[in-house]
Amino acid sequence: MGQPSAALATFAQAARPTTIIEAPRLARKLGINLLLASETFQHTGSFKFRATSHLASHVPNPLIIAASSGNFGQALAYACSLVGKRSIIVMPQTSALVKVDAVREYGGQVDFVDVRAKSRAARVAELAGEHPEAYVASAYDDPLVIEGNSSLGEELARIDCPFDRPPEVVVAPVGGGGLTSGIVTGLRRAGSSLEVVGAEPLLANDAAQSLRAGRIVANETEPQTIADGARTVSLGVHNWAILKDGLAGIVEVPEENIALAVRLLFELANLKAEPTGALSVGALLTDPDRFRGRLVCCVVSGGNVDPAVYRELLGAS
Amino acid sequence: MGQPSAALATFAQAARPTTIIEAPRLARKLGINLLLASETFQHTGSFKFRATSHLASHVPNPLIIAASSGNFGQALAYACSLVGKRSIIVMPQTSALVKVDAVREYGGQVDFVDVRAKSRAARVAELAGEHPEAYVASAYDDPLVIEGNSSLGEELARIDCPFDRPPEVVVAPVGGGGLTSGIVTGLRRAGSSLEVVGAEPLLANDAAQSLRAGRIVANETEPQTIADGARTVSLGVHNWAILKDGLAGIVEVPEENIALAVRLLFELANLKAEPTGALSVGALLTDPDRFRGRLVCCVVSGGNVDPAVYRELLGAS
Repeated sequence: MGQPSAALATFAQAARPTTIIEAPRLARKLGINLLLASETFQHTGSFKFRATSHLASHVPNPLIIAASSGNFGQALAYACSLVGKRSIIVMPQTSALVKVDAVREYGGQVDFVDVRAKSRAARVAELAGEHPEAYVASAYDDPLVIEGNSSLGEELARIDCPFDRPPEVVVAPVGGGGLTSGIVTGLRRAGSSLEVVGAEPLLANDAAQSLRAGRIVANETEPQTIADGARTVSLGVHNWAILKDGLAGIVEVPEENIALAVRLLFELANLKAEPTGALSVGALLTDPDRFRGRLVCCVVSGGNVDPAVYRELLGAS
Repeated sequence: MGQPSAALATFAQAARPTTIIEAPRLARKLGINLLLASETFQHTGSFKFRATSHLASHVPNPLIIAASSGNFGQALAYACSLVGKRSIIVMPQTSALVKVDAVREYGGQVDFVDVRAKSRAARVAELAGEHPEAYVASAYDDPLVIEGNSSLGEELARIDCPFDRPPEVVVAPVGGGGLTSGIVTGLRRAGSSLEVVGAEPLLANDAAQSLRAGRIVANETEPQTIADGARTVSLGVHNWAILKDGLAGIVEVPEENIALAVRLLFELANLKAEPTGALSVGALLTDPDRFRGRLVCCVVSGGNVDPAVYRELLGAS
């Protein structure tokens, strides 16, 4: 469908404020006071638009290139469209058609790569050579990305809290560390000392290992967790610089608790979350004692999930 | 689980403001500019809490009795709990366990009736005789219910619109007419002339027939639409008094468009809606020409739907 149609009204180019949701039935089930900060209604359906809208409006380049088979690609395509820039999103040939369609619908140009023959990074480098005017964007390891995501931290610092007290701890998913490093940056800038805890798939626990080791530890291969937004090989360098002292800890969430969190968000909070988005609630399921008696804000980072995958998750019980 | 646990923080007793969601992909798909006003994150997951919280705090009675197998029962149980009143919810013996559990979890007492032997209304009358101190609540045909729901109309009159202009028409589901009569009341009180269009299942089109006839027309039996919140036999008298001149029209939505609307809200707006809640989007699918070129606000009235039903709806395509 190309560029957004001029016949339909356009939206503000800024990120949409996060949606705060009280979920008393979920809180009761978990025995933990909680609020949800949902980014599932953010433009393009995930927090990634915070980064890409900042990026697209701050780099002078007319073209932005990135590798992404998920939320970053859609968010970058849309953000570029809004400011009249072009985007090329490198995606594996095997990407789900709905994801390819979404990138195209948001105005992005899809470049397919056969990952058996060439890595995505190699294809991005090749494209960068062909397009010297382009900015090459990382989904997390870029100060502009962290700065964009920091707007969520600033919002959480001044949350309009329906309880009689502000939250005491924020739990957010960790993949490359773009979201959590942004949240920490925004909170601290706003003068908040709110604790930030990461939620990482146990199958992809490189960030937890990194915190323990005091240096970046990488997964050997891309981990096959259902939380596909956290299938990163390691934290980014810029993210690590913030997270090594900025995170109060990381909870390593087993796959079954990720799936259970998706179901509980559906059943008890009416919230459609993607597996990566449900990691924060999965952390409460995994280590409840850490959170008992405190008011917890769980960031649900995104909601984009295929209907077939979601149906399976709802069915498993 | 009885009364809400004192160990968990309690919430403000007022209704939560509606959640305004831009949905550009859904808008593009329909070719209609739209906003969603979602009541799926309202306390107890539907707009019904607006009515019940108003009712519970405005009647002097210590006990409220109602027949409901759905959202009204949950909302009434929770609203009564919050102000220290008791509630008895009359439900058919055949009600889904999740609905029974939800009423109990919110602090309501469930009274089962074998609807083959006795009507729900007869059982309510019986209980009212046994409990002379009780208020008997209708889910729609009561000025206090309409007044409670009018808060949504007031909100829609002063919507913080992300477009460059306010909406021109509100579309909302019609069952007994409690929601639409409340919206009309609230809008007009706030000085708004925003048009209100009802969305009714074609299978349960008594309200559309009533508008055409100029008097209340009843269905012969409870219609078996998948939009279970609209399985009412007729509009209420108090509702009709407002709706006969207050509604700009009613779109009669075929079952397949209700199901399609549930799927589109899932796929293109990340919103979990129950079939009744999706009626307003179903109306746009059914009569797009009525809405083309105007900015439409679709009220998604609730999100409570069984996982098994939802899985089926997502699967049908």
